[in-house]
Amino acid sequence: MPISSPPTSDETGDHPLTRTEFQIIRTVTKHPCTLWEVLSAVDGPIRETYRACEVLKQRGWLVFRKGRIHPGKLPRRLVQACQIDFSMVLEKLRALLEAAPPPTTEYFQEPMLPEDLCRRLEFMWERGDLFDRTFFVIGDDDLFSLAAALTGLPRQIVVGEIDLRLVGYIKEQASRLRLPVEAFQYNVADPLPASFRRAFDVFVMDPVETVPGFTAWLSRGLAALRHPGAIYFGLTELECPPKYWHRFQQLLNEAGLVITDILRGFTRYQNASLAPPDKWNKTKLVQQAPFPALQEEQNFWYRSSFLRAETLKSPKVPVRGRVKFDRSFYQSPFTMTLS
Amino acid sequence: MPISSPPTSDETGDHPLTRTEFQIIRTVTKHPCTLWEVLSAVDGPIRETYRACEVLKQRGWLVFRKGRIHPGKLPRRLVQACQIDFSMVLEKLRALLEAAPPPTTEYFQEPMLPEDLCRRLEFMWERGDLFDRTFFVIGDDDLFSLAAALTGLPRQIVVGEIDLRLVGYIKEQASRLRLPVEAFQYNVADPLPASFRRAFDVFVMDPVETVPGFTAWLSRGLAALRHPGAIYFGLTELECPPKYWHRFQQLLNEAGLVITDILRGFTRYQNASLAPPDKWNKTKLVQQAPFPALQEEQNFWYRSSFLRAETLKSPKVPVRGRVKFDRSFYQSPFTMTLS
Repeated sequence: MPISSPPTSDETGDHPLTRTEFQIIRTVTKHPCTLWEVLSAVDGPIRETYRACEVLKQRGWLVFRKGRIHPGKLPRRLVQACQIDFSMVLEKLRALLEAAPPPTTEYFQEPMLPEDLCRRLEFMWERGDLFDRTFFVIGDDDLFSLAAALTGLPRQIVVGEIDLRLVGYIKEQASRLRLPVEAFQYNVADPLPASFRRAFDVFVMDPVETVPGFTAWLSRGLAALRHPGAIYFGLTELECPPKYWHRFQQLLNEAGLVITDILRGFTRYQNASLAPPDKWNKTKLVQQAPFPALQEEQNFWYRSSFLRAETLKSPKVPVRGRVKFDRSFYQSPFTMTLS
Repeated sequence: MPISSPPTSDETGDHPLTRTEFQIIRTVTKHPCTLWEVLSAVDGPIRETYRACEVLKQRGWLVFRKGRIHPGKLPRRLVQACQIDFSMVLEKLRALLEAAPPPTTEYFQEPMLPEDLCRRLEFMWERGDLFDRTFFVIGDDDLFSLAAALTGLPRQIVVGEIDLRLVGYIKEQASRLRLPVEAFQYNVADPLPASFRRAFDVFVMDPVETVPGFTAWLSRGLAALRHPGAIYFGLTELECPPKYWHRFQQLLNEAGLVITDILRGFTRYQNASLAPPDKWNKTKLVQQAPFPALQEEQNFWYRSSFLRAETLKSPKVPVRGRVKFDRSFYQSPFTMTLS
């Protein structure tokens, strides 16, 4: 499937903003700032922030007046991108989730809480990874793609998803809401379609937590990513032991990515996929429990850390070809929630 | 300098608690719990938590009654360790900092805000890395050692510090307050004293942010660490670019450690060491600023991420011998705050 070329902006097309530049502009549009208030709100080296300030000054987008840094005349799209109402996005996402196909363990689906998905979006926006970026998402039972597009910021979002029900639903809603979202059926064990190589700025996943599964997920994402790019993913400690985390960090390091954030407990899940008693009672979670594991008493105990990594150069891709899709792909000795 | 052997506890000496066990006990001492409330509050794989529950059940430290998990008869020290008043620690730390030798750029000192140091302590306590652990600290202008000891939890804390004024002050206060803290003069460019090898559970540092400097700091810490162990350190994006972070993550990975947390902006600093105008005006921070950098307008803009990593096995140590201590040890092209 070819990707349609992302829309270019009339207003900022000549000046694709770096995330440093975006963070600076966002800061000064809140209120006139001191240099320190700018440095407080921008990621990365002081040196880079200083350089970006010089660029924006020359472009007339930053003006120093009466002892404070003010925004100059800015494109309207950019000003809008600096003030996003995530509560509006959350409200619309809830409605979309209610009408979506229910999660199934067949594809290891377990959607996160919609408010935690919006926190992820807000974190990406804070990092400057949302505005004017193209996204590739593998697996989207959370409807990340639609929620991200509802902010109005990403240029384009492409979803690879194995569940045809979800592919259909995402396409249908994207078309109805005129969102720049495309979806196609994709099994992560298959190679990435050639037209997707190095085509995206940001990759997002909530992968299965086995070594072969994670490696495949990451490989497809890294193949799709160009430099400078960022990846975001969830990873639990609950079903993924330190030695797997260690292996995944090695993969990232060797691929030329640096991890910038690991946020413990950032994402909670709905615990809905195991609801049928025949599934519930067959899990190790229940069978090996040291105390009664009563389904109806559950709080939102299942959670993951949220990780961000960014490229230092075009990523080196761990695996390019087809990989074996067997039990070891989705189940490890640490998997407790499958029956 | 030989380390005095850490005090052993009469009460838990036979049962050195894993951090999983500590986290479980701490959870059920708050109020009787469901299994889900325990899983919510404990790090690591479900499998490990289940195993630890079985151990604690057999020991009589966990009891299931009326549908809830209760604490059994616990050692008093352990119960106390489950409820720490960090605001009391903060108050005492403030007084200690006021009387401490003032920071000097000669040794790249820049103490953090005391409230942020206490947040670090609380985070370590949450992870189960404070109770009954032995600590090695390199560089302690923050007085981490005294603050940690004031919680009453660590078995022993040893500080290696280059500044003799601080060594003297820490020893003096430790003796006055009867805290299990020792300090000795140490230049991180020198090899670790042999008696310290694999002698500690936790290593803490706020290193200089050059590749040779960080490598030395980390190497001494890893040499001092035994398995299972954890390290905690601060790292900025402000003066340490992604390519250095990437190199440091490679060092950690090759040493056999996994990064479990990267908390952006967790620690703010006092911005006091540059106060003298002759120093201030000679920094790149001021000289290269795109807008006026007025010292008196500063907020707490200087901040670092807080990282935690843990061992998978006894760490492989990157560098054992003496390293060259020259300008490149403490200054990189990204250093902006030295004159």
